[in-house]
Amino acid sequence: MNSIRNQLLQTHERIAPFVHHTPVMTSSMLNEISGASLFFKCENFQRMGAFKMRGALNAMLQLTPEQKALGVVTHSSGNFAQALALAAKSLGIKAYIVMPDNAPEVKKQAVKGYGGIIVECLPTLKDRESCSENLMKEKGLTFIHPSNDLQVILGQGTAAKELFEDISGLEMIFAPVGGGGLVAGTLLATKSFDPHISVIGCEPMAADDAYRSLLSGKIENNTTTDTMADGLKTALGDINFPIIKEHISEIIRIEEEEIIESMKLIWERMKLVVEPSAAIALAGVLKHKEKLKGKKIGILLSGGNVDLGKLPF
Amino acid sequence: MNSIRNQLLQTHERIAPFVHHTPVMTSSMLNEISGASLFFKCENFQRMGAFKMRGALNAMLQLTPEQKALGVVTHSSGNFAQALALAAKSLGIKAYIVMPDNAPEVKKQAVKGYGGIIVECLPTLKDRESCSENLMKEKGLTFIHPSNDLQVILGQGTAAKELFEDISGLEMIFAPVGGGGLVAGTLLATKSFDPHISVIGCEPMAADDAYRSLLSGKIENNTTTDTMADGLKTALGDINFPIIKEHISEIIRIEEEEIIESMKLIWERMKLVVEPSAAIALAGVLKHKEKLKGKKIGILLSGGNVDLGKLPF
Repeated sequence: MNSIRNQLLQTHERIAPFVHHTPVMTSSMLNEISGASLFFKCENFQRMGAFKMRGALNAMLQLTPEQKALGVVTHSSGNFAQALALAAKSLGIKAYIVMPDNAPEVKKQAVKGYGGIIVECLPTLKDRESCSENLMKEKGLTFIHPSNDLQVILGQGTAAKELFEDISGLEMIFAPVGGGGLVAGTLLATKSFDPHISVIGCEPMAADDAYRSLLSGKIENNTTTDTMADGLKTALGDINFPIIKEHISEIIRIEEEEIIESMKLIWERMKLVVEPSAAIALAGVLKHKEKLKGKKIGILLSGGNVDLGKLPF
Repeated sequence: MNSIRNQLLQTHERIAPFVHHTPVMTSSMLNEISGASLFFKCENFQRMGAFKMRGALNAMLQLTPEQKALGVVTHSSGNFAQALALAAKSLGIKAYIVMPDNAPEVKKQAVKGYGGIIVECLPTLKDRESCSENLMKEKGLTFIHPSNDLQVILGQGTAAKELFEDISGLEMIFAPVGGGGLVAGTLLATKSFDPHISVIGCEPMAADDAYRSLLSGKIENNTTTDTMADGLKTALGDINFPIIKEHISEIIRIEEEEIIESMKLIWERMKLVVEPSAAIALAGVLKHKEKLKGKKIGILLSGGNVDLGKLPF
């Protein structure tokens, strides 16, 4: 793990000038409700509202001058689209974002607001991929994957690294599992800096590909993705899955009502705007609270980008 | 002002063990939108979700042992009800809260959750007052007014005092104006610690008693209180109005749509849950932004207690 440790140290140094060292917050009320000692890493306060900035920056900062001059491309309709656009803007690089033509206007506007160039495609994985490939060929762009890229994974791991630096003695970390970038980065950081900390992934019951992949030992696809946690619908990849498979303690599956309940607790008790995909980590703690009495637990609040017109309460 | 300065120093020392020194947050996005440099004092993170804890504690900590043994009473259906209940719980004192029988169940539950004893009255000022008086007589309780009490005002002033300590060089502070406790306390703190800072009050157009009181020179009543900023419907009193009249720079009246717009900006851009009564201070800045270019401005985010089932967006 030493080489990963060094890579994480270099990653953090590389991206630090461009990201916020986000605060860690606590709530005596939520400690009381859970019976544990909870430390919330507030990546909802990260630039563009989510941890995704970390990975996008780390990948982009390592491009060659030629690659930087030509630009980058990704396909995403979520936080990574905004992250790549804002990271690119910070570095003076052009970012093309392939988005399905039925993506919500609010998401398109957010990407445009950060200076991203939107290229619309049909809402199928096939068209999304062929559209990205065409752009790469035509314009010489470098493709950056939202989660299945080691540099992106290392970038996401710096959130957990900061959490260890700020809070000593953590016994567990609860993280959401979507495409697998955040949880893989968290696992690499944990194993490099404090292997005694166990990492627990939290995944929507309605998009439980990671849970089933762990059981079968190979990457399973989502048969449904009917969850309000829109950041957690994406599939695992061949770079992050082996990391998850090797190191993760457990994946807990969470029902939609449990996501809503946790989201409400965080909004009402902590006064923090977090998205469903972030609230799921607290839901995991509450679901297993009988086993967690007195534990010192880190919770990754991954992001806070919600459409206020479409809240579940 | 020296004696007030000393009183503020003593007040802060007195309540510090029982309140949070809340963080000050910034937003490059809101700086860009406003053209000014904004520092948000996050009293939404205060215990029970609002600055009111400060004043309630300061008043209660100065009761005699006999008064403490008998208990306190207030009439409020808002944040002060919860503040008095929680402050009393922290100090092991009994708190009776007179609330109108038509107060929302969610507010009654919050007060009960903090251990307050609710006494219901008819929803009229007269019944509310006579009910409080009866309790005082029967049980020997000490009445603590939510805003028109010098010890409460001094307590509320510690929020601005902390803001000066954390951020130097502020030129202005924008604060909401309701019953007048927070703005009067802010004025006392400003005049005591840095008289160059001007304080601007922000008040709903639909409950503009303070604005009209400044014009006429005497306390005017609200003829309407049809505003979503439910913390700002209350009337000024004979203790806080003279302080406001002497020291305030200006009161800006804010329309309901402007409150919603600012609340939305704070929720979406800063990821903070604030109540309409808190968002109004940013609305004041945005309304006058042409005059505020480049200014270094403190904004008191007074609280974050909202009913998530009844949001204006």
